[in-house]
Amino acid sequence: MTYCIAMTVDEGLVFVSDSRTNAGVDQLGTYSKMHQLLCNGERTFILLSSGNLGTTQGVLSNLDRDIKSGMLPNLATVPTLEEAAECIGIASTTEQQKHHQARKDLDGFKPGASFILGGQIRGSAPGIFLIYPEGNFVRATQTAPYHQIGEAKYGKPILERSLGEPVSLDTAARIGLISMDSTLHSNATVGPPIELLMYHTDSLGAGVHHTFNQDDPYWSEMRRTWTDNMRAAFARLPPLPEADQPSATVTRIDPNR
Amino acid sequence: MTYCIAMTVDEGLVFVSDSRTNAGVDQLGTYSKMHQLLCNGERTFILLSSGNLGTTQGVLSNLDRDIKSGMLPNLATVPTLEEAAECIGIASTTEQQKHHQARKDLDGFKPGASFILGGQIRGSAPGIFLIYPEGNFVRATQTAPYHQIGEAKYGKPILERSLGEPVSLDTAARIGLISMDSTLHSNATVGPPIELLMYHTDSLGAGVHHTFNQDDPYWSEMRRTWTDNMRAAFARLPPLPEADQPSATVTRIDPNR
Repeated sequence: MTYCIAMTVDEGLVFVSDSRTNAGVDQLGTYSKMHQLLCNGERTFILLSSGNLGTTQGVLSNLDRDIKSGMLPNLATVPTLEEAAECIGIASTTEQQKHHQARKDLDGFKPGASFILGGQIRGSAPGIFLIYPEGNFVRATQTAPYHQIGEAKYGKPILERSLGEPVSLDTAARIGLISMDSTLHSNATVGPPIELLMYHTDSLGAGVHHTFNQDDPYWSEMRRTWTDNMRAAFARLPPLPEADQPSATVTRIDPNR
Repeated sequence: MTYCIAMTVDEGLVFVSDSRTNAGVDQLGTYSKMHQLLCNGERTFILLSSGNLGTTQGVLSNLDRDIKSGMLPNLATVPTLEEAAECIGIASTTEQQKHHQARKDLDGFKPGASFILGGQIRGSAPGIFLIYPEGNFVRATQTAPYHQIGEAKYGKPILERSLGEPVSLDTAARIGLISMDSTLHSNATVGPPIELLMYHTDSLGAGVHHTFNQDDPYWSEMRRTWTDNMRAAFARLPPLPEADQPSATVTRIDPNR
C-alpha cells in the first residue's frame, strides 16, 4: 500500500509520500514514491506514484525515454500542465496494457497505478492533478485544494478540517505530515522513510526536500506535541448540553415494563 | 453505511452512533443503531448495530422473545458478559442463516451484521465486545480500549492518539463525538441524528443519553472550536529541521544532467 498527498496553497505546492511497498504482508520493500522530473528553471514536475511498482517504474522510464529521444508529446515540451498530466495518463495505460496482455491468464494480477502530478511551467500557474489508473485526470481546485493516492481515509479528516481556509506553505507542510502520521499508525503497509517536498511558486527548481527516517527525532517530537495539543483541545470543547431521553426510535427491551 | 464507537475507561463506558441507513445512494432512512436492553438495576446492556437492518431488527426481537419466554440462554439470566456476547452472536448467525437459506438465489444479498455489546452485570466489571458477522467476538482491553463498527477508518486516528492514556468519561465522550464528526464529513452514508450514551460503572441503569440532530447548535459549536484548536496546534508544532538532498532512491529525470 501507499499514502501520498499533494496540496496547493497560495505560496506553492506541498508533497508528502511514504516509502513502503509490499506484495502481501511479508514481502516489504522501500522505494521512494516521489519523483522529480526536469526541475530545470523552465519547468518543474513532481510525480507521486501508487500501485503496481512495475507499472510506475515503467512509466518513469518511458517518460525519460520520450524526453531524451524527442518523441512527442513529452514533458520537456508540452505547453500546459494538463498536457503533462495527459502524458502520464497515456504512459500509464500503455504500460498497464502491455502487462495485462502478457499476463491476462493470471487471476489477481493488478497492473494498475495512480499518480499525482504537481508542478509548474514558466509563465503559467502551478497546479496538481490526480491521474487515475484509467489515464483520466482531475485538477485540484480552491474548494478541494489537495489530492491523495493510496490509503487515503485515515489521513483525510485532518486535510478536510485544515484546508478549509488559506494556509501558508509551512502550515500546509505540517498538515501533510500530521495526515501522514495518522495513516502510519493505522496501516502497517504505509511506512517510513517519509519524504516532504515544498515547492515555492515561480522557483521552477527542485524545491525544498526533507526525509524522515524511522525513529527520526523531529517526527517523534512533532507527534508528541500534536498528541499533547489534541488532549488539551478536548478540554477546550464546550461542555455537553443537557441530557435527554433516548429518541423514540431506540429499541428498549425490558420485560418488566 | 454506519459508524458506531464504544470506549471503555475507568469511570465507565461511552457509546456513540449515527442513524443513517441506506440501500444504494438514494434510499436513505433514519434508524437508531443504539439499543438499550434491560438496564434494570441488576444488568445493563447497550447494543450498537451495523449491517443489514432486517438482520439487526430480527436479532433484537429474538433477544426480546427469549427473555420473555424464558428460553435459555438469554440476556436476563446469563452470568457473564461473555455469555451475553455469545447470545448476540448466536442470534445474529441464526437470523442471517434464515435469510440466506431463503434467498440464496439472490446474488449480492448480504444479510451480514456486526454488533458492539457493552454493559455490566451486578458484581462484575463492565466491558465492551465486538461481535463479528460470523458470531465470534473479542473483548476490548486496556491496550485497545475501544471498538468500532461500520465506516471505521476516518475516525480511527483520533481514537488512537487520544486513548493512549487514561481519560475521564466526559473526555471519552468528546473524543467519540470528534471521531464521529470526522466520519460524518467524509462519508455521505453516515448521518445524524448522532446519539451519545455515557454509562457510569456500577450505576446499572440506562446511562446518560444525548441526541444531536442535523444543525444542532452544540455540534456546530463543538466542530468550530475543534477546528480552531487544530489550526492553533499546527502553529505550535516544532519548526521543520534543515532540508536535505532527495534520497538516493528518488528518481530524477533531467536530460541536461
